[in-house]
Amino acid sequence: MTDKKLGAQTAALEAPVRFAAWANVAGKKEGEGPLAPSFDYIDGDDTFGEATWEKSESAMQKRALGLALDKGGLAVSGLDWLFAGDLLNQCIGSSYAARGQQVPFYGLYGACSTMGEGLILASLVLDGGFGRRAGVVVSSHFCTAERQYRTPLEYGGQRTPTAQWTVTASGAAVLSREGDGPRITHVTAGKIVDKGITDTNNMGAAMAPAACDTIAAHLRDTGRSPDFYDLIVTGDLGSLGSQLLLELLEGEDLRLSNHADCGALIFDAQRQDVHCGGSGCGCCAAVLTGLLLNGLREGRWKNLLFCPTGALHSPTSAFQGESVPGICHAVAIAAP
Amino acid sequence: MTDKKLGAQTAALEAPVRFAAWANVAGKKEGEGPLAPSFDYIDGDDTFGEATWEKSESAMQKRALGLALDKGGLAVSGLDWLFAGDLLNQCIGSSYAARGQQVPFYGLYGACSTMGEGLILASLVLDGGFGRRAGVVVSSHFCTAERQYRTPLEYGGQRTPTAQWTVTASGAAVLSREGDGPRITHVTAGKIVDKGITDTNNMGAAMAPAACDTIAAHLRDTGRSPDFYDLIVTGDLGSLGSQLLLELLEGEDLRLSNHADCGALIFDAQRQDVHCGGSGCGCCAAVLTGLLLNGLREGRWKNLLFCPTGALHSPTSAFQGESVPGICHAVAIAAP
Repeated sequence: MTDKKLGAQTAALEAPVRFAAWANVAGKKEGEGPLAPSFDYIDGDDTFGEATWEKSESAMQKRALGLALDKGGLAVSGLDWLFAGDLLNQCIGSSYAARGQQVPFYGLYGACSTMGEGLILASLVLDGGFGRRAGVVVSSHFCTAERQYRTPLEYGGQRTPTAQWTVTASGAAVLSREGDGPRITHVTAGKIVDKGITDTNNMGAAMAPAACDTIAAHLRDTGRSPDFYDLIVTGDLGSLGSQLLLELLEGEDLRLSNHADCGALIFDAQRQDVHCGGSGCGCCAAVLTGLLLNGLREGRWKNLLFCPTGALHSPTSAFQGESVPGICHAVAIAAP
Repeated sequence: MTDKKLGAQTAALEAPVRFAAWANVAGKKEGEGPLAPSFDYIDGDDTFGEATWEKSESAMQKRALGLALDKGGLAVSGLDWLFAGDLLNQCIGSSYAARGQQVPFYGLYGACSTMGEGLILASLVLDGGFGRRAGVVVSSHFCTAERQYRTPLEYGGQRTPTAQWTVTASGAAVLSREGDGPRITHVTAGKIVDKGITDTNNMGAAMAPAACDTIAAHLRDTGRSPDFYDLIVTGDLGSLGSQLLLELLEGEDLRLSNHADCGALIFDAQRQDVHCGGSGCGCCAAVLTGLLLNGLREGRWKNLLFCPTGALHSPTSAFQGESVPGICHAVAIAAP
């Protein structure tokens, strides 16, 4: 049997897997940002009709997946598998959203890179010939993340200049072995990279080395040059992390003139007071399932490299003095 | 392209994926239990040489994977992908273990079912033609789990009669598209099942309905009867959960005379005072990578159905009055 692995970290799909449908939901602040027109639903008070923020986050995942299925004219029974994840302890955002949905479920934890991890695994499973359609859904919520990673909202903690703002959003995609949507052609799974950053309010710096590592690996494995892509879009490095990424890539002799970052795109950083930009699983997922996939469908771009980044730490590891390991997954997406 | 999915939840592997090597490490209490001879390394004080329990858990995963690689005569560079998970917030047991290991990494969260989820995804990716070898490693540690899910050890909380004891152990397997080890032939991914149990000290009852659902689905999808298997071994239902499972299966007209449970096997419940038995990702992983795979290799059994179960809740969801959703994945393993 042939090996469809390409180089050390990349898989070349035999028959590209298609995005059959996609959708997203977002919170109030995100709905006041520059990408508002690309969100399918914006909630007025971030509760999504629920009594606790954790339940709100589950409601977001349910709604985003439901909207994506609606757009694709599908029922949840049309999915062979569901891949889902979030930032919460024990990933309860995802489990409670998938509870009661009659679909085989794979829970993922890749921090803010989870959308990438889900797209990779779903693509590999489908392209391997197992099932016809898979759902991928992830989320983050500002209020659940603050409570869990930092301090309760009521405490009113000050934010440092390098801090990012956890995005309240969920993005869902339905992948299919058929159809005429944007195509996933190659996927590059990231290794864990840790350069010793211990400031948990500087996630951009912690994740930039992983982004550099995976982008370089992807280009090496595929033999492509950066300008093969109209856009190389990282997950949520924010403004500082993006700057660091470009510097690190220069050290690898890679000069990017086509880089964008979901954390920088989703907010107007100055006006919306989000310091270095947005973060959270929902950030890049909402940008992908709005701006990016819409743009590919509409012919705005031909080839994108979608590179969500994650910081694989926890409050406990930080309290114990550990540095912050980063990871980045890359998904090459071509226009239909 | 043909669909290798069988029924609603099962995939039939085209060319069975093999266990090339496996290993485990366990804590002191586990090393005083009936399965002690099947553990590759038993730590004398559960610290595994580290200063915090969380770091101990990472050390366990590193050691288990290292031992498995050693047995297989492989370096970590011989792995195309690593699938890993644990019970800790943000799965830090796994991320910190994989940090510095040069291997593409997929973080999973399936609570105590994670070994099953990892084996399924690794099998599908390999059988789909992507790479030749994948590692799967999971862990749990009594002291990290108590601190995080219940009360700090120093508090000396009382345990209820239905409680289980989180196993301190890690199990690692190297799967390969080649070789002559035990074979994975079919995998059945579980759906999330929640029957409304809210007692977080009764995980057996919360997970038994999911085990029933997945075992019934597996038998339905494959057209096999329960006695096709020499052993149908659930993850960590413990004694009460096992009893409930058998009752629930009878309601589906399935009578099992060949059921065993890793949570019941790993301790001598009476002598070791563990109430309903063992639990935790490491429980079924250590039983699989010791007793079960050794037994298959030695001809003790021909066909096993390995069915790890997980409870996908968190302390936060419990505080908010939520019930406990369960999941169970099933992996059919045949002797070499």
